Amino acid sequence: MEKIEHIGIAVKDLTVSNLLFEKLLGVASYKMEEVVSEGVRTSFFKSGPNKIELLEATNENSPIAKYIEKKGEGVHHVAFAVNDLDYEIKRLEGEGFTILPGFPKNGADHKRVAFLHPKGTNGVLVELCQEIQENEG
Amino acid sequence: MEKIEHIGIAVKDLTVSNLLFEKLLGVASYKMEEVVSEGVRTSFFKSGPNKIELLEATNENSPIAKYIEKKGEGVHHVAFAVNDLDYEIKRLEGEGFTILPGFPKNGADHKRVAFLHPKGTNGVLVELCQEIQENEG
Repeated sequence: MEKIEHIGIAVKDLTVSNLLFEKLLGVASYKMEEVVSEGVRTSFFKSGPNKIELLEATNENSPIAKYIEKKGEGVHHVAFAVNDLDYEIKRLEGEGFTILPGFPKNGADHKRVAFLHPKGTNGVLVELCQEIQENEG
Repeated sequence: MEKIEHIGIAVKDLTVSNLLFEKLLGVASYKMEEVVSEGVRTSFFKSGPNKIELLEATNENSPIAKYIEKKGEGVHHVAFAVNDLDYEIKRLEGEGFTILPGFPKNGADHKRVAFLHPKGTNGVLVELCQEIQENEG
């Protein structure tokens, strides 16, 4: 766990929230990206060594749509940067944590990612993410 | 907004969660501190340039007790480091954000802090915090 890589925030309207977080953070979004497999449109802001990721659902089956329906807008997940995702997964499974089914896989922002089941982490949806190296794949 | 200073996580039992986050982050808590005025016991972990703050209520009127009753355990707030708290408060009020009543004031971890009303920030309770200099007070 090298640092908090980003915090993911579920929002209803990315256009509205982009403007809001631009005012809040004092910087503009530097990247927007759609992750079709997850049913989300994302927007990224820098805050020093960290990022804020806004997530808007693109369809009603998106995890973000379900999250907002259940809990409203707010912090959806906390992502930690790791140097070796496979090693961290093994280490955490050894400690009794559960990796969500279907992970690891490629996510937004050029990362290979895995999520831990929030029932084992005090309700916090924890993401682990490793930068995909340019010379891979 | 220099970086994410810390993420505050509301937990029911600090002893249990201290052990859990030690396993998750791979490091032990480096500080525990009670903030009597807020009715919380806190525990801090380092993650590179960032921190994780666990918060346990010490009485039923604590904001953390009310939060857990309403939403369960999970991410309670996101704190950004600022160099000049008064300047940021003025800037954000000028942008239409609302500072919660009673702030700024001194918080845990040797910080002067203020919170923004989450209704204006997509449901995210945003804290601003400035390090208190050694030669002050």
